Amino acid sequence: MLHRGELSVATRGRGTYDITHDVARIVSAGSAQLGLATVFIHHTSASLIICENADPSVRADLERFAARLVPDGDPRFEHDDEGPDDMPAHIRSVLTQTSIGVPIVDSKLALGTWQGLYLWEHRTAPHTRKVTVMIVGE
Amino acid sequence: MLHRGELSVATRGRGTYDITHDVARIVSAGSAQLGLATVFIHHTSASLIICENADPSVRADLERFAARLVPDGDPRFEHDDEGPDDMPAHIRSVLTQTSIGVPIVDSKLALGTWQGLYLWEHRTAPHTRKVTVMIVGE
Amino acid sequence: MLHRGELSVATRGRGTYDITHDVARIVSAGSAQLGLATVFIHHTSASLIICENADPSVRADLERFAARLVPDGDPRFEHDDEGPDDMPAHIRSVLTQTSIGVPIVDSKLALGTWQGLYLWEHRTAPHTRKVTVMIVGE
Repeated sequence: MLHRGELSVATRGRGTYDITHDVARIVSAGSAQLGLATVFIHHTSASLIICENADPSVRADLERFAARLVPDGDPRFEHDDEGPDDMPAHIRSVLTQTSIGVPIVDSKLALGTWQGLYLWEHRTAPHTRKVTVMIVGE
Repeated sequence: MLHRGELSVATRGRGTYDITHDVARIVSAGSAQLGLATVFIHHTSASLIICENADPSVRADLERFAARLVPDGDPRFEHDDEGPDDMPAHIRSVLTQTSIGVPIVDSKLALGTWQGLYLWEHRTAPHTRKVTVMIVGE
Repeated sequence: MLHRGELSVATRGRGTYDITHDVARIVSAGSAQLGLATVFIHHTSASLIICENADPSVRADLERFAARLVPDGDPRFEHDDEGPDDMPAHIRSVLTQTSIGVPIVDSKLALGTWQGLYLWEHRTAPHTRKVTVMIVGE
């Protein structure tokens, strides 16, 4: 059995956005008791991560780490047509995930207790991001 | 056809743990001739990698690289409730994999000759880690 | 329904190689209207990325970023049997993807407008790289 769901996520610019419940809702609609939910983002300047979901300072530290690892406006970047955050957004996407497969067990997204599924917007301006959830199950 | 297997991996603290054979055993039990095995770890301070499996110095170099890239006890990290390796563990997890899909061909995990599947414990203390293997096949 | 395709990619050394159309051709041959295509590379010194497909300077900047992040010939690497690019190739692979799942919608690989699927060769010498595409669909 296959089931497809789609999300449209309006971001307010750079940062992490919890999509766990939206994906869980699609899994419920899919009615698979056992299976695999693959979450896919259709962009190259925003990505997906599974991250600690309890203390917001984890994601704040992660953001600061990424900003140091891939500095906005680095003069060594040639590609800056859309501004100083353009190339860093592509690199941050490549270093994280465009696609994540999560098991479905007992009709539920089988995340660990402390795992949340986040869309990570890497551009500083707000964007609308499209995410597909493809469920293979029975 | 779907088949689910589960692993419980007792780590002795930071380092890489070869789970290739454990995952292969679940694939054998699943009896799929062709398919996809998705390996998923239910934590945010330990992760999964596929890495060279012949020379242990590869994983030693990888460990040293990660320690330099994300230093334990970095004063710029706010989140350190569980110690100097707390936030680095989350970042190292985000930069590697929580989920990896491996093809099943001729009833076997179709890894390359030099590929091993490793659980990477990022915390310095021993932990028990839960891994799910979800097989979709026929 | 399962369908397996295989690619053999002859690289000319370090750099990114567009395999989008090769993977799309396998998806067409698989005849799934809806499903999941998992692309898997059977190596630990070459990897897969989804990256911006319009401006080649994005991938040139990415290459320069990777070269700075993981310098060839770094004396801190013990594993250098095959040369100064040996260990960096393994690390670059671990930091990117060995496996990527892409949805199939309306019988097509459902990539975003600006998304291309690339094989990233991390060794400086030419290599022949094996890629499996496993399709689960209906």
